[in-house]
Amino acid sequence: MKFICSKSSLSAALQIVSKAVPSKTTMSILECVMIDATEDFIRFIANDMEMGIQTDIAGNIIENGYVALDAKIFFEIIRKLPDADVTVEADINGIVTISCEKSRFNIPGRPGDDFTYLPEIQKIDGITLSQYTLKNLITRTIFSISENDPNKIMGGELFDIDGETLRVVALDGHRISIRKAALNSSYPARKVIVPGKTLNEVSRIISDSTEEEVSVFFTDKHILFSFAHTLVVSRLIEGEYFNVNQMLSNDYETKVTVNRKELVSSIDRATLLVKEGDKKPVIITIGDTALQLKINSTMGSMNEELDIEKKGKDIMIGFNPKFMIDALRVIEDETVDLYFVNPKAPCFIKDTADTYVYLVLPVNFTTVD
Amino acid sequence: MKFICSKSSLSAALQIVSKAVPSKTTMSILECVMIDATEDFIRFIANDMEMGIQTDIAGNIIENGYVALDAKIFFEIIRKLPDADVTVEADINGIVTISCEKSRFNIPGRPGDDFTYLPEIQKIDGITLSQYTLKNLITRTIFSISENDPNKIMGGELFDIDGETLRVVALDGHRISIRKAALNSSYPARKVIVPGKTLNEVSRIISDSTEEEVSVFFTDKHILFSFAHTLVVSRLIEGEYFNVNQMLSNDYETKVTVNRKELVSSIDRATLLVKEGDKKPVIITIGDTALQLKINSTMGSMNEELDIEKKGKDIMIGFNPKFMIDALRVIEDETVDLYFVNPKAPCFIKDTADTYVYLVLPVNFTTVD
Repeated sequence: MKFICSKSSLSAALQIVSKAVPSKTTMSILECVMIDATEDFIRFIANDMEMGIQTDIAGNIIENGYVALDAKIFFEIIRKLPDADVTVEADINGIVTISCEKSRFNIPGRPGDDFTYLPEIQKIDGITLSQYTLKNLITRTIFSISENDPNKIMGGELFDIDGETLRVVALDGHRISIRKAALNSSYPARKVIVPGKTLNEVSRIISDSTEEEVSVFFTDKHILFSFAHTLVVSRLIEGEYFNVNQMLSNDYETKVTVNRKELVSSIDRATLLVKEGDKKPVIITIGDTALQLKINSTMGSMNEELDIEKKGKDIMIGFNPKFMIDALRVIEDETVDLYFVNPKAPCFIKDTADTYVYLVLPVNFTTVD
Repeated sequence: MKFICSKSSLSAALQIVSKAVPSKTTMSILECVMIDATEDFIRFIANDMEMGIQTDIAGNIIENGYVALDAKIFFEIIRKLPDADVTVEADINGIVTISCEKSRFNIPGRPGDDFTYLPEIQKIDGITLSQYTLKNLITRTIFSISENDPNKIMGGELFDIDGETLRVVALDGHRISIRKAALNSSYPARKVIVPGKTLNEVSRIISDSTEEEVSVFFTDKHILFSFAHTLVVSRLIEGEYFNVNQMLSNDYETKVTVNRKELVSSIDRATLLVKEGDKKPVIITIGDTALQLKINSTMGSMNEELDIEKKGKDIMIGFNPKFMIDALRVIEDETVDLYFVNPKAPCFIKDTADTYVYLVLPVNFTTVD
């Protein structure tokens, strides 16, 4: 195998596929990136057996062939080469020579016959949306999954397609995050649970562009993301997702409208008085025109007031500050609406169109003062 | 005590003095910053007993007084406050109230009677130079000190004042780094050894400005840096520094002129094939018109050629790549001159004016090919 391509495209391709290289594994072939130049493009593939990524770049292929290379060392070498054309050549003994200007590396390659290519996924049953939309759906919900929970379902996100809507749901035992996006046409109903790790990596690879699209295809066992010469294939998590709808409710006793950034800053300041690992709640007291935020800990106390608009009853309720901040940080609106029922019931942060719904369970507290 | 000042000046002052707050200590008073508003300015002091920093800011002092506060929590609170005026008030029970707009923190203060103020240093015997010059002298040599060496002297830098010259020297067992700067007038000869930790912190606090000055004063036991309402006082390291002059030599058998950035990049690439902790040398072969750089390891091999100008004999010599890179990275010149005697003798990287001299000991190697 021998080909010449630009350092920049090679480096970009390796950056993409390296997301599917496991950091720790007992199977050394998984630490490799497969370079396949058997056709008229150069294909890079990495596969940790849960998720696989493949991306193609153009180049001058002088001799067709393929070879597997340790992904980490190969990527680092390419990254540190001058910004010029790079020649990659595998000899019959499996030694791979990487040359660029006056620099020349020899590293051992592997025949790669034990490398597992991506499973073949039919591009039939799927949806198309902008990379921007998908990225936002993921990054604005993913913090709510519970990756190490014995219940594997909590380590994934529900992708719930229904007509012209894609709803993404993430939850752990204390909160639920839901984002909805409109699709460009109507699709048959489908629900799949996608591993959080896959979604994290996909959200890092895709762009912020509202112009560039990504197609998402499904089979019973797999999900395929297809965009810009790149495929990401992942296993789905098996099982039935939680019935989220029955946890949601439109009833409330108190509705509060508050400046989002001010509320985030205020809760953020309160967390200064919470030691790592301590479960001290922030106590919120809703009055007629003000939201009072209080925290008391061994380190000191804080007390702060925010202007609000209120409908309904006064209420005093405690929260884990992190959960409130996580949700408030990914909302773009200048003001947010908070809905409360009672101090034991979840608080909802949502907009009128239900584009987003964040449910946060309250924390019990004992009033000191 | 009660005063009002801007969040920004308070935050800047705390950032400066926090460098003298030890991260780990058994004496809890050392974790405090002393706030002293007994005169018509607000003074902040931290002192880890090796190094102390004090800085003054202006503010509206409503009630004179002083209090000691946990530096970390106080700094974090100030940092997260809105960008507005901050009121700091200590009550008779030692509770300190920090208020800013509608936010109000109460944290416990300490009377601070066990706090150690900075030692009084007479500003008599000293030199003055620009902050830019001092910062550069430090940052371009400090990487050569050996902080954990049983010989404490290696954990400091020699400040060697002689007439109109300040020479700064740092060394460990494998290399010496020397930088020289011209002073604006002639000073009596003096040699002191300044702890590396102090110099690191000073280099972070002072600016890059060639306009702003710093004065440095000496006593038998202490050094004082004075600049912009700030004092840094540090103990000196006792003892006699190494006789560096006898390790330097102007004799050479080979002189090579090479592009500095190309040489750095090339050695940097070679280190990719060196596993962490492995002491694999980079082997440099000097020919008539080219410097060849080679490394061989279990991970692979690299071979690279750089154009050079050469005077004298051919030579083949091995180096720890890190030591060469450390020195080459802090030189600003486009090309550098390397001087060699033989494969067992140190290599010198220096300019004709001896503004900088970097000595690096070679490493033994066995030629494989």
